[in-house]
Amino acid sequence: MCYNDNMNNIKESVGMDLITIRELYKNREEYLDKDITVGGWVRSIRDSKAFGFIVVNDGTFFEPLQVVYHNTMDNFDEISRLNVGAAIIVTGTLVATPQAKQPFEIQAKEITVEGASAPDYPLQKKRHSFEYLRTIAHLRPRTNTFQAVFRVRSLTAYALHKFFQERGFVYVHTPIITGSDCEGAGEMFRVTTLDMQSIPKDDSGKVDYSQDFFGKETSLTVSGQLNGETYAQAFRNIYTFGPTFRAENSNTTRHAAEFWMIEPEMAFADLDDDMMLAEAMLKYVISYVLEQAPEEINFFNSFVDKGLLERLNNVVSSEFARVTYTEAVEILEKNNDKFEYKVSWGTDLQTEHERYLTEEIYKRPVFVTDYPKEIKAFYMKQNDDGKTVAAVDCLVPGIGEIIGGSQREDDYDKLLARMKEMDLKEEDYEFYLDLRKYGSTRHSGFGLGFERCIMYLTGMGNIRDVVPFPRTVNNCEL
Amino acid sequence: MCYNDNMNNIKESVGMDLITIRELYKNREEYLDKDITVGGWVRSIRDSKAFGFIVVNDGTFFEPLQVVYHNTMDNFDEISRLNVGAAIIVTGTLVATPQAKQPFEIQAKEITVEGASAPDYPLQKKRHSFEYLRTIAHLRPRTNTFQAVFRVRSLTAYALHKFFQERGFVYVHTPIITGSDCEGAGEMFRVTTLDMQSIPKDDSGKVDYSQDFFGKETSLTVSGQLNGETYAQAFRNIYTFGPTFRAENSNTTRHAAEFWMIEPEMAFADLDDDMMLAEAMLKYVISYVLEQAPEEINFFNSFVDKGLLERLNNVVSSEFARVTYTEAVEILEKNNDKFEYKVSWGTDLQTEHERYLTEEIYKRPVFVTDYPKEIKAFYMKQNDDGKTVAAVDCLVPGIGEIIGGSQREDDYDKLLARMKEMDLKEEDYEFYLDLRKYGSTRHSGFGLGFERCIMYLTGMGNIRDVVPFPRTVNNCEL
Repeated sequence: MCYNDNMNNIKESVGMDLITIRELYKNREEYLDKDITVGGWVRSIRDSKAFGFIVVNDGTFFEPLQVVYHNTMDNFDEISRLNVGAAIIVTGTLVATPQAKQPFEIQAKEITVEGASAPDYPLQKKRHSFEYLRTIAHLRPRTNTFQAVFRVRSLTAYALHKFFQERGFVYVHTPIITGSDCEGAGEMFRVTTLDMQSIPKDDSGKVDYSQDFFGKETSLTVSGQLNGETYAQAFRNIYTFGPTFRAENSNTTRHAAEFWMIEPEMAFADLDDDMMLAEAMLKYVISYVLEQAPEEINFFNSFVDKGLLERLNNVVSSEFARVTYTEAVEILEKNNDKFEYKVSWGTDLQTEHERYLTEEIYKRPVFVTDYPKEIKAFYMKQNDDGKTVAAVDCLVPGIGEIIGGSQREDDYDKLLARMKEMDLKEEDYEFYLDLRKYGSTRHSGFGLGFERCIMYLTGMGNIRDVVPFPRTVNNCEL
Repeated sequence: MCYNDNMNNIKESVGMDLITIRELYKNREEYLDKDITVGGWVRSIRDSKAFGFIVVNDGTFFEPLQVVYHNTMDNFDEISRLNVGAAIIVTGTLVATPQAKQPFEIQAKEITVEGASAPDYPLQKKRHSFEYLRTIAHLRPRTNTFQAVFRVRSLTAYALHKFFQERGFVYVHTPIITGSDCEGAGEMFRVTTLDMQSIPKDDSGKVDYSQDFFGKETSLTVSGQLNGETYAQAFRNIYTFGPTFRAENSNTTRHAAEFWMIEPEMAFADLDDDMMLAEAMLKYVISYVLEQAPEEINFFNSFVDKGLLERLNNVVSSEFARVTYTEAVEILEKNNDKFEYKVSWGTDLQTEHERYLTEEIYKRPVFVTDYPKEIKAFYMKQNDDGKTVAAVDCLVPGIGEIIGGSQREDDYDKLLARMKEMDLKEEDYEFYLDLRKYGSTRHSGFGLGFERCIMYLTGMGNIRDVVPFPRTVNNCEL
């Protein structure tokens, strides 16, 4: 059986000379009434005896292109037998269609089949559930929803780079494999080349990691922050953008074992500067996506999350509110009857509290600052009150926390004392302490979970649907 | 002991209001004879009784700024005692210095110490060897060489994104943790949450991976290509840019266990298109770095690699040559007396052969195409001669191979047959075969090793010196 009977009949070197459907939409006047050639995949096809219609998507633009073909074509029958999913190359005249929904169509003169599609193609014209589509992660980007999600993902990644690079931030690739467990946070994945069938042990019966690839225990990183700080103390402003990992055995719509993080870090910058950066970044990224992917955002707004567009526009145009944790707790305590988890000073805020603050109280994004030190990481700068640290979470309507950051403790003695209180080993953090020993500066940074950002921009409710090939408990397909 | 005695004396919220040294160099006319405030780290300091000079670098620009200060300042003695590496904030007047090497200096009115530097600061004014600097990976970005390397690295990463995004390529995050070993290539790192001390076994005594986090054996990816192809068949043009891993026990100047790869993939594109893309990409990236980092490139050209600038300019301005592997072998065979490894048809080309071709024969970059199928991967498109595949390597002067790519086999039957010849399990590649079953297209792509690209752009000779925190055999520090 050969699915590609037609591969040998097509002309050579069409390649990148094909005109994209994006180009047709952007510069239509240049192409109307002219002969053009496009290549793409059949989304739907219907025919009568004399002519037929094919809807083609070429992956470059959310909207497809309608192709009209006639039985004057030699291979009319072959074309009419095509299945959804087939790849074709169409040459013909682009004509305006003022009466139709779409602005133009192509009157085909020649259609060649680049690759047929077997009859069992899983993506038929009907709607498929997201659950089903997750089982065919290699094909789901061919659907409207996932075309939109993953184009937005790509644009968002670029917008983030653009934002930081335009401001002179240096992009740092912090390591993926690490010998230390940053902030002792969460479960980590071990990385090893030891023979799992027969793990070498030392004299005392312990695993002999000296025989492992790196001669020591190694894991996948949970954050690039500490490494990033070393570069901020050299370049002043830096950012990381890379994969991070958590081996948490939690099966929720918001957790994946592998996800991407953006972690900017600024020297000579305090918590105020940190908040200004976070607000500017979110506004920039949202504006960029609204501008570059209006078709995709409209689609999400119509079919996935009806309030999306209003919410995004609101974020771009409002000044973010600011409140301390202590003030926020006072506000929330008065509304404790509304919450599953009751709030009191010292407790961590749950999503229900965060959403209440940003959606009901402020009706716009809000920075909550100065959290109790007990619920935050060791490296956060201790405030003078002895109780709180200069931490900040940014809460946004519809989702709650989207960014977590802090001013870092820049005082050598205070940092060391806090590490001892928290039973961290000094020798694991010598490099980090060095930064406070040699030219320490006020410095601040934050982390943005990239997937959470994409969920926010698209309204998609499950993290599995914004990662191309999601990794979760018991799931590592393709 | 407290290294930060002065942290409490400084004024609040200077933060991002500090003027960067980059800004002073770019728009000097705006600042000359005006009062400005800068923050940075002391590179050197010398003083007499009446006045002193401090050279400050703030990480935003390769060139430092000279600060002149006088004993009219209250804290003259404190400042004079500062060590190299200290962080300071300087307010004063920017004045032109037409007689001096540097174009301007700052006459200080006030200097505050943001963070002192302990006397044992490892980076003194003298030159340190790259070997030594590798042992202090958290401090080396504060040196001229590594400031230059890692700024170029950041700019190159951005240039690559810019190149692809401007051409409508969709950025895809292919997975880091994988359940399959792409192309059966090389040694892989295992990823696991099993208790290493006591590995669970099944009834037959084999490791029971059903108890592992993903319920199966998983590893770190060696390439995102196969996953990337699934997205190219949806979006037409895509690229990946992420970390990849090899657990090879090789201790060379060119191999790291963790490195970043860029892998574009185009549907409706043949090997010609692939070469056009690679050539355009390399020229774009080099041009961008030459334009954005002239100071850094001049530094490398003067102190690291004397021929660098000429070589880069040559690549930008020449049309890349093209030769088939078969023709290349004919040329090389005539010069076999010059090579350690003798060339004959069927052997893989070594770096010495690659460099001979690009440096001696063509004196410019050259694409070598159509390699014997035995020395290339299973997924490469089989040529009609039955012996070669549509592979391409791009060779550049000074380094040899910098890019490897191919047109992919798009015929279901041929691909399956080749997989069987090479003993690959069909069930591991069902998703990949599906791409040939449902709307297959001619398609092509290539891989660019990011670190090799940075070595090429900087003239740095050891991969450990172009990765912020290198991971190699027995080395996983910080």
